[in-house]
Amino acid sequence: MSYAVAGDWGTSNLRLYRIEKGVVVERATGPGIGNLGAPPEQVLRATLAPWRETGEPSAIRLCGMVGSRNGWVEIPYADCPADAAAWRRGAVHLALDAIPVTIGAGLACTRASGAADVMRGEETQIFGAMAIAPALAHGRHLVALPGTHSKWAQVEDGRVTGFQTFLTGELFALLRDHSTLTRASAEDGADTDEATGFATGLARIDAGGHLLGALFEARAAQLRSGVGGAWARGFLSGLVIGAEIAEIAPAATGEIALIGDPALVERYSQALAARSLTATAYTGDACSLAGLALLETP
Amino acid sequence: MSYAVAGDWGTSNLRLYRIEKGVVVERATGPGIGNLGAPPEQVLRATLAPWRETGEPSAIRLCGMVGSRNGWVEIPYADCPADAAAWRRGAVHLALDAIPVTIGAGLACTRASGAADVMRGEETQIFGAMAIAPALAHGRHLVALPGTHSKWAQVEDGRVTGFQTFLTGELFALLRDHSTLTRASAEDGADTDEATGFATGLARIDAGGHLLGALFEARAAQLRSGVGGAWARGFLSGLVIGAEIAEIAPAATGEIALIGDPALVERYSQALAARSLTATAYTGDACSLAGLALLETP
Repeated sequence: MSYAVAGDWGTSNLRLYRIEKGVVVERATGPGIGNLGAPPEQVLRATLAPWRETGEPSAIRLCGMVGSRNGWVEIPYADCPADAAAWRRGAVHLALDAIPVTIGAGLACTRASGAADVMRGEETQIFGAMAIAPALAHGRHLVALPGTHSKWAQVEDGRVTGFQTFLTGELFALLRDHSTLTRASAEDGADTDEATGFATGLARIDAGGHLLGALFEARAAQLRSGVGGAWARGFLSGLVIGAEIAEIAPAATGEIALIGDPALVERYSQALAARSLTATAYTGDACSLAGLALLETP
Repeated sequence: MSYAVAGDWGTSNLRLYRIEKGVVVERATGPGIGNLGAPPEQVLRATLAPWRETGEPSAIRLCGMVGSRNGWVEIPYADCPADAAAWRRGAVHLALDAIPVTIGAGLACTRASGAADVMRGEETQIFGAMAIAPALAHGRHLVALPGTHSKWAQVEDGRVTGFQTFLTGELFALLRDHSTLTRASAEDGADTDEATGFATGLARIDAGGHLLGALFEARAAQLRSGVGGAWARGFLSGLVIGAEIAEIAPAATGEIALIGDPALVERYSQALAARSLTATAYTGDACSLAGLALLETP
């Protein structure tokens, strides 16, 4: 059976999809660009090896950090505003053992402040979402991609006109794993404590609190109010997600498109609802695949 | 020569002062409560050993995390509002090899949101500053103690009525040492780049930017604008200090008392001046010593 391969190769993970007649029939995972341990071609070969035993793929399409300075080949960013056609033109073609490989470009923009911003991988999901829901390619929309580096993109008649990155996921992980905030109590607590902490963190921000002056409550509450580590982790998650939404809220009108992991999208939906903002959810995987399908192969 | 010992024993360091006739004649340092490696009495004995060869001190006065759950003995917090007399009553008396030891209490408060907050060590500097500058004990003042966990305290006629902790220093260290933000460029750059980055970070916040959505610029600027790691560290420092001041600014009226390390106090003065706020600086060491002198020994 002939097949093609599509893949999202980010900092943390390589996710490969085996596609037959347009349908994903198998998945494989490998190390991300941030922890390769070997040249990217070699890592890709190793991850593909079981599939290649049944024959060579017709083509490989990739997106994400594989196109960065530390990836396989550095691909220039496409500049905003960019529509799907401009983005596709930025893709680079190479080969792995004579199998044609196409790697999609990232996007860059400059905000009004003069600050630069970049993305690699999320643009594929944004253009993929427009392919899945064509209404997104007409009129003005706000597209949110929560994650390690959350992106909020403005889309106008099919063009990404600009975007902003929030360090939300990375900051949460730093605070959870490396700070003095989550281990002040000997008790950890239950999952329900984490949900209570999340709601408390969200409420602090919704009541007008700011991130930097609210973080230490995670520790103080453990010393004074008898809560444990689970509550503190939930509280920190509520604070950072709440702070992200609070920054975006003044500019948010109408329905928001939320693309990502379903559990994370659920937390964002809860935070948006607290501000009377509504969102339509799209699965990150499906959007990546739809976006990768837009890339031409030679 | 008879002498007394005063000490600030925080999470990172033990700082001891040998005092003869009210004057510091020698200093010694040891490990902080966060990295003791041995019981606190043993660590204190080892640090004091050279001084004790010439005779026993008449008394030892300590403040800081030595009075916390992980310290020598857990001392209940004095609740705000608290004046110097209430704080002194909270001190605990014990002994090291028959030398009388007094450890000062920390302070706790509850903010309007219901959030708890705590300090251990900074209260000694606040009451010490009032002893150094008696005008601080009359009327309303805002006292800032920048550091790993920056504290901003309201003081009213000599009483600490409440305070708020900002994670500024710890967050900066997490971002500098553990994040993806400071190492995107192969070049590090010069000290002047760090100062330029600091000014840019401050300016972002002063122009109405918020912390979470501005952090990623540290990385994007390295990828797009050719700046290096030194610029990025300065930028992050400007962002976090700027964000701290931005949270406090709406409530800040009149002169602010700034207590701390001179280099850090200088950065805060610069950030305050950008908002037309003025500050009087006090050296952290001098305030600690003046506060410790207020503690009674048996």
